[in-house]
Amino acid sequence: MIDTIFKHRTIRSYKSLAIEDEVLEKILKAGTRASTTGNMQVYSVIVTKDKEIKEKLWQAHFKQNMVKQAPVILTFCADFNRFNKWCEQRKAKPGYDNFLSFYTASIDALLAAQNVALEAESHGLGICYLGTTTYMAADIIKALNIPKSVVPVTSIVIGYPQDIPPLTDRLPLEAVVHADVYTDYSEEDIDRIYKDKEALQQTKDLLIENEKETLSQVFTDNRYTKKDNVFFSKEYLKIIERQGFMNNEL
Amino acid sequence: MIDTIFKHRTIRSYKSLAIEDEVLEKILKAGTRASTTGNMQVYSVIVTKDKEIKEKLWQAHFKQNMVKQAPVILTFCADFNRFNKWCEQRKAKPGYDNFLSFYTASIDALLAAQNVALEAESHGLGICYLGTTTYMAADIIKALNIPKSVVPVTSIVIGYPQDIPPLTDRLPLEAVVHADVYTDYSEEDIDRIYKDKEALQQTKDLLIENEKETLSQVFTDNRYTKKDNVFFSKEYLKIIERQGFMNNEL
Repeated sequence: MIDTIFKHRTIRSYKSLAIEDEVLEKILKAGTRASTTGNMQVYSVIVTKDKEIKEKLWQAHFKQNMVKQAPVILTFCADFNRFNKWCEQRKAKPGYDNFLSFYTASIDALLAAQNVALEAESHGLGICYLGTTTYMAADIIKALNIPKSVVPVTSIVIGYPQDIPPLTDRLPLEAVVHADVYTDYSEEDIDRIYKDKEALQQTKDLLIENEKETLSQVFTDNRYTKKDNVFFSKEYLKIIERQGFMNNEL
Repeated sequence: MIDTIFKHRTIRSYKSLAIEDEVLEKILKAGTRASTTGNMQVYSVIVTKDKEIKEKLWQAHFKQNMVKQAPVILTFCADFNRFNKWCEQRKAKPGYDNFLSFYTASIDALLAAQNVALEAESHGLGICYLGTTTYMAADIIKALNIPKSVVPVTSIVIGYPQDIPPLTDRLPLEAVVHADVYTDYSEEDIDRIYKDKEALQQTKDLLIENEKETLSQVFTDNRYTKKDNVFFSKEYLKIIERQGFMNNEL
């Protein structure tokens, strides 16, 4: 059993303590041990500590305080640039300017990211994933000089936690697990699965704070709206294309 | 330090030993502890043990032997179906039928998958990720009765290893890590980064086996060809659309 997995909480407040170089190196090495498609390692990690560049990332990530506060921001990218260059220097013609290659490289980047997150936590560090990475990919590309064939996929802020919040609630295991094949949810299933979550004090507080009747409405009307999703879908697809991953013809 | 991370190897040959129920439950629970966007948990895991359904999955996954041999196949899906149903039952109007939502749900699924893989390995089990999941998503959807708003993203076969192969080579850390911003690779960088990999006996064997002059050509001409990538790009984009994730207009 990996204790660290079961103790994970998202940390949003960090001490002003640097991460030791040898710890950071170990954490990044943990990333490279993750499975990768055909051992191609088609991802990159950008390790940002510089104050000015962090400021630009903070702007991109909706000015979330922790992006400035944490000593290190890791930006994980789907990256075929290095592999393509290697092919071209070795009399090989790369065919990786398409959507499948982008998605394959995304998988590589995300599995590496989770290794990095866990290894960091095992050293007493805290982490927080930044969903704003896909929303604001264009600004991140600019801030980090990211070239063609590379797309930011996720980011992690990392540092020593200011304090440790309680474990976050999760749906019961039966909610996400299906036996043998997918069994679709009945109305009763949905009621049962979400019952405990809906009964939390935290949920009740959210309803008041957001002036909503149901928790679902907090998500659909305030947190993850159709308007934003449509806007950022177009933006991210544009970035995937602009970075050279939408040439889906022979 | 998480020892399991640094000991990971892909296992392609399994003992005919079942996985204990309580071990499997622990492993799946580890998946649910991974970070998830807004705590929405927009993913599902299909746990296939049934011989007939495994046979169908084996067909889909290019008839790779281990898919039949391993006692359990886990199919990780980007899943907004459960969340959408919950919204609809709670007077909320979900706006998650777009590309960003698919990608967000993919991130959830992949972070959960890596937790599951590591927790499994910590119990002495072996795993192998199946890249064929995105290629053959249409057949997997059919085999597993996967409904709209759900897309298979990756799969893991899991079981007790027949034997433990040596650690796989990786590029040096400097190959995948960038300090502060992305520093593009010079010709010399590429030569230096790939030098050790190219010098491996395994590489020399691959060149003879594949009748190629360079290792890059083994990838571009035989393993991951432009023709296949283009074909599977179109297929996967079609599936993403068919499952209801390409309505990128208001």
